[in-house]
Amino acid sequence: MKRIILFFFILCWYPVYAQRDKIDLEWQTGYHKVEIDQPAAWIPAIVPGAVQLDVMKAENYKQPWWYADHVLQFDWMEDVWFTYRTQFKKPNLQEGERVYFFSKGIDYQFKIVLNQKLLWEQEGMFTYVNVDLTDDLKDQNELKIVLLPVPHLGFKFEDGPDSYRRNARESAKPAVSYGWDWHPRLVTRGIWDETSLIIRKPAHLSDVSVEYELNDHLSRAKLQTTLEGIHLQGCYFKWIMKDPQGKIVLEKQERLTTDQSVITAELSDIQLWWPSGYGQAFLYSSEFTLLDGKNQILEQQSCKTGFRKIKMIMNEGAWRREGGFPKSRAVAPASLEVNDRRIFAKGSNWVHPDVFVGVITPERYREQILLAKNANFNILRVWGGGIVNKESFFDICDELGILVWQEFPLACNNYTDDVKYLKVLEQEARSIIKRVKRHACLALWSGGNELFNSWSGMTEQSLALRLLNSLCYQLDPKTPFIFTSPLYGIGHGHYVFYDASINEDVFQWMAKADKTAYTEYGVPGTANLDVLKSFIPENELFPPRKKTAWELHHAFGVWGAERWLEWPVLQKYFGEIKSLEELVKYSQLLQGEGLKFIYEEARRQKPFCSMAINWCYQEPWPSAANNSLINWPNEIKPAYYQVTSACRPVLASVRIPKFDWKEGEDFSGDLFMLNDTYDQLTNEKVKVIMQYDGIEKELITWDCPGAGGFSNVKGPSVHTAIPRMTGNLFTIQVHVAGKPQYSSTYILLFSGK
Amino acid sequence: MKRIILFFFILCWYPVYAQRDKIDLEWQTGYHKVEIDQPAAWIPAIVPGAVQLDVMKAENYKQPWWYADHVLQFDWMEDVWFTYRTQFKKPNLQEGERVYFFSKGIDYQFKIVLNQKLLWEQEGMFTYVNVDLTDDLKDQNELKIVLLPVPHLGFKFEDGPDSYRRNARESAKPAVSYGWDWHPRLVTRGIWDETSLIIRKPAHLSDVSVEYELNDHLSRAKLQTTLEGIHLQGCYFKWIMKDPQGKIVLEKQERLTTDQSVITAELSDIQLWWPSGYGQAFLYSSEFTLLDGKNQILEQQSCKTGFRKIKMIMNEGAWRREGGFPKSRAVAPASLEVNDRRIFAKGSNWVHPDVFVGVITPERYREQILLAKNANFNILRVWGGGIVNKESFFDICDELGILVWQEFPLACNNYTDDVKYLKVLEQEARSIIKRVKRHACLALWSGGNELFNSWSGMTEQSLALRLLNSLCYQLDPKTPFIFTSPLYGIGHGHYVFYDASINEDVFQWMAKADKTAYTEYGVPGTANLDVLKSFIPENELFPPRKKTAWELHHAFGVWGAERWLEWPVLQKYFGEIKSLEELVKYSQLLQGEGLKFIYEEARRQKPFCSMAINWCYQEPWPSAANNSLINWPNEIKPAYYQVTSACRPVLASVRIPKFDWKEGEDFSGDLFMLNDTYDQLTNEKVKVIMQYDGIEKELITWDCPGAGGFSNVKGPSVHTAIPRMTGNLFTIQVHVAGKPQYSSTYILLFSGK
Repeated sequence: MKRIILFFFILCWYPVYAQRDKIDLEWQTGYHKVEIDQPAAWIPAIVPGAVQLDVMKAENYKQPWWYADHVLQFDWMEDVWFTYRTQFKKPNLQEGERVYFFSKGIDYQFKIVLNQKLLWEQEGMFTYVNVDLTDDLKDQNELKIVLLPVPHLGFKFEDGPDSYRRNARESAKPAVSYGWDWHPRLVTRGIWDETSLIIRKPAHLSDVSVEYELNDHLSRAKLQTTLEGIHLQGCYFKWIMKDPQGKIVLEKQERLTTDQSVITAELSDIQLWWPSGYGQAFLYSSEFTLLDGKNQILEQQSCKTGFRKIKMIMNEGAWRREGGFPKSRAVAPASLEVNDRRIFAKGSNWVHPDVFVGVITPERYREQILLAKNANFNILRVWGGGIVNKESFFDICDELGILVWQEFPLACNNYTDDVKYLKVLEQEARSIIKRVKRHACLALWSGGNELFNSWSGMTEQSLALRLLNSLCYQLDPKTPFIFTSPLYGIGHGHYVFYDASINEDVFQWMAKADKTAYTEYGVPGTANLDVLKSFIPENELFPPRKKTAWELHHAFGVWGAERWLEWPVLQKYFGEIKSLEELVKYSQLLQGEGLKFIYEEARRQKPFCSMAINWCYQEPWPSAANNSLINWPNEIKPAYYQVTSACRPVLASVRIPKFDWKEGEDFSGDLFMLNDTYDQLTNEKVKVIMQYDGIEKELITWDCPGAGGFSNVKGPSVHTAIPRMTGNLFTIQVHVAGKPQYSSTYILLFSGK
Repeated sequence: MKRIILFFFILCWYPVYAQRDKIDLEWQTGYHKVEIDQPAAWIPAIVPGAVQLDVMKAENYKQPWWYADHVLQFDWMEDVWFTYRTQFKKPNLQEGERVYFFSKGIDYQFKIVLNQKLLWEQEGMFTYVNVDLTDDLKDQNELKIVLLPVPHLGFKFEDGPDSYRRNARESAKPAVSYGWDWHPRLVTRGIWDETSLIIRKPAHLSDVSVEYELNDHLSRAKLQTTLEGIHLQGCYFKWIMKDPQGKIVLEKQERLTTDQSVITAELSDIQLWWPSGYGQAFLYSSEFTLLDGKNQILEQQSCKTGFRKIKMIMNEGAWRREGGFPKSRAVAPASLEVNDRRIFAKGSNWVHPDVFVGVITPERYREQILLAKNANFNILRVWGGGIVNKESFFDICDELGILVWQEFPLACNNYTDDVKYLKVLEQEARSIIKRVKRHACLALWSGGNELFNSWSGMTEQSLALRLLNSLCYQLDPKTPFIFTSPLYGIGHGHYVFYDASINEDVFQWMAKADKTAYTEYGVPGTANLDVLKSFIPENELFPPRKKTAWELHHAFGVWGAERWLEWPVLQKYFGEIKSLEELVKYSQLLQGEGLKFIYEEARRQKPFCSMAINWCYQEPWPSAANNSLINWPNEIKPAYYQVTSACRPVLASVRIPKFDWKEGEDFSGDLFMLNDTYDQLTNEKVKVIMQYDGIEKELITWDCPGAGGFSNVKGPSVHTAIPRMTGNLFTIQVHVAGKPQYSSTYILLFSGK
């Protein structure tokens, strides 16, 4: 039985069991058809994890689970009961100490049974579980967690488009696991976050939180630490706060007279927390110590605070769009303002880094969030089809200056107005808000994904959304809240390079689009070559065919017959494709050039446009083709680099009207200098070159004038006749003299005469 | 000292002091410059009323207050303190009885002082005041209500457009009294609703409310009566419910064991409450009796319940408007569904029936609401610039089947996010919601008027609106809530017959409009001739000139130089106007024909369009020209009859492309049979006739086929060359054979060659 001191391992607050006794447990699991059955066999369970992985290992399923069609082996596991079991000796307790079972997440509906006595029932995986076992402990104990079958409404793939996801519309379980165009139907289950026994002293803290109010100049903060606990009367509470450089800026000690106390303080010369690209993400650290009447340390906790003000305001020019009489309202506010400065939000949609959310580690989060920062992103939209991430996700975003747009677990469904569902949603939402609101990175609450679109059918009148707005207002009024994305004026899509139904490529539709914010858009590309080879059996690799691993891994049939591989589009542009290597090359070329265009065009549409957030960042298992920038588990696709380039703080950019060009056509392009920073732009010499068949042709030079912060400069248009070329690709290069970091290159198609 | 039994006078619930002792008081008032001063003189006060009226009477101001420029006499009264005073002997109390000061409304910020002791302070006129005086009573008592000066921010007319109303943006006082285009700047003050002393028995009820849940077929109801009170233990509570025909359908008696109880019941064969035009507004009556342990009656109350289900759903076809990629959301739900049936909402915008809200009586409400019902209206939008009406307003709407769209007191301002304001707003909103939600007529909550328009600048992120949505969700989740009107897809305006800036008349812009709902639109007309003569001095009557009573009464300069009289528009159509009689005739002609067109066109745009609610119904003082249908105090303008015609449940209608026609032009019109009922339409013979110079010319006959309920039928188009005419007006008549109640007539202008 190990006792581990947790102090300082956790950066941020909500129930932090620091300097207390924590007892890790050994778990087993097993499945059964009805509740009262016992499992036929008990098998070892990894916690946190998923019962599917435990069964796979114990029963020698084909591995790895993500190879070929192995994922189908899990199909039967939705409709059975699973029970976790652990046995432990009663801990040695000192006078007044109590033993709690504590878990940060059990997925999804479960009962906690100690020595055959039911102690707790819960529906919902985002509410921490905290059950006092003390009075029911024996010398030798058996603790069980009984998981009810997965909630679903019986919709199957055969029931029509989007049928899988409809299974989710009466529960607060993330919808994605019921099947999505990039996620298998695989409803994971089990203990998915840190879980242990906790021994608590008679006097202990249950919650400590710091809130602040900034003055108008954002230079001073009124601080308020609220602490709650049990048997605190007569104890001392000590609060030390250090600035980002480690200097102590605040030290307070108070004698407690009740179990609830509020301690106030003031701080000046605040070093603000800024999102990446706009300043440093300064964090202050607090250390809290609970001491008994004799000054003996009972408990210690710590947390970090980033001081910032965040608002969602109307986009520039948006007020003018209400039109003539009869006057209406055209667009909703969609522009983030941080510390009184409008920012341009650049980022991506975050989905599960893994189908099995129980295996996600802080290291995995850090790798991916660091890549996001390095891509010049300042925001991640945590999409409502997935989980609300573990604490370490938010800690890392705090640290790296990545804003988080946090959706509640609702997506692409008409969630019911029924009281039973609303009760679970309220419990889960309260837990989520209380936990996440403490993080500086939190930029925006959203009710969920695409709930106001026709395929979902929710409205502002849906009770689930009114409830969420109400809870966010009550618990966290300073953080903006939107009902869903897209809202009025915000755009989702398109998700392909070329759409035959409108005969337009991405350059064409995007240049005509006129949205306040682009918060989803994608261009699919195949997985990297080595990734494809890792999960597609060799005999299925080329050419890609339906009814193979390609299809199961989303290359065909997920949205129309040809997505996400888009074989006809590849053939349209590149003719017959002769090898897997060629396929990957061309598919990934389209993804990179397409995404680059959208990001840059969104920025060219500033100041009316305020956000560019592509669909999607990563993926939860290896897809054969997908809109993601990163292959599972963490392989960078080439598009990542194109997007990184398009998101540079300052760059020279050309709006090119289409991708494929024929000999003799009038090629044109509009020049821009894009600046998302608040630094002044200096005068620059810009030169545009067309390069083909090894020939460099200078098209124009532009003396780009300087400009103020956060302002783009629109330059001249380039025109030239497309010459005869031998190769099928040519480039347009924009050189900025002496500033190679501003220069850009676009790859285009020469499609003959 | 009178003791009046109130039992059965009040139809509906919230603190109803039935069968208790009520002591009416004699009041005096007076004004002073600073709080600690005493008034120089005490003058008699009428309660409920307004201090302005008391001063006017006592100090021999020029009367009536609404004549010529007499209203200016009140100007100085905003910035002084007023104190009300009353003296009374201590009532004869039986053992345990207590004396309360009770008021349904004191406007706006005040202190209650008994025998020089401060007992209560309040900001807000919509929260009932209920102060226990007992412990501070002497044999002879002096009770004072000290009114603080009116809240305003110091904006004056000279500060620019809409400057007056900006004074309201940090308080919950109705904005209209700071000045509007049809309301003088006259910030009324004082005790504005029923006010008295109440003697309560030791055991008494503080609140009784009935809630219900209907089954899916709307045939059965689960009822729940919640009662709260003091010293109820050991008492009996008896509940008798009668159906709309007076038959007892429920009788329950329970012994109370605590001060809070819930009594449940079930009712079958429910007779639903329907809005006017869709069925009867059935109301059930409940009688509640509190008895002591010896079966002696302590107290009786009564209330009415209308069973209905109401929702705000997407308009038909609205889901298809999200557009191609990038997909957004185009329009918000704006279609009312009552008892599972979509209705077409026809009505008007309700403003104060009187500048002095204290003088409004139930009789005044009844007259005006009855006129609304007779105009074929089923809804009143109670506009957010005005008050939330007294209880009798809602009782009468319940009874007459008039839906109420209730706005909170916010209008045309960017209300502050400051904590102080939000606290007052929360208190007021809680009071309003708890009171009004009990009424069957309540169709919709709205945050206020035009808050999302550029001249206000609020958004979904404004804390006041998030607060209101949150409170409505918590206290009354079954009633729809919208942030404001207009919302996305809803239209406000236009407000003129002809707009020179776009060179279009009302027929032209309205036929092109494409809104989900038209919830404000107007065409101004002068007041009736006798009304004009009643308040404009004879020497100013004709021609209308600026700097006269015409201007002060809104004929000029309220929105551009010429509104609301629109003299240039009248001249454009009718040439030189030679008399007051001619002016009134032509102005009122335009108003009637213009409004008729808009109402009918909105109905022709059904099913996408769901509402036609004009600006505005009545007016709070005599205007010289205004969009109102009814002159103050209750004079019907001719447009009322045109609107009544346009709102008939079924009618034949023609869409005519413009108002003025020249000889030889190709006159055209599109025929429709409009049906807002759920009755089947039968086959009808329809004939269209043009009548001019005494000549009748038949243009077309149409065999209009039958159609299902709630469906319009589109007929053929009429074409004819405009003949030479002698008169300047001609009519288009649509005759429905054997159904004169479906026939329609349109008056148009012949403007020569």
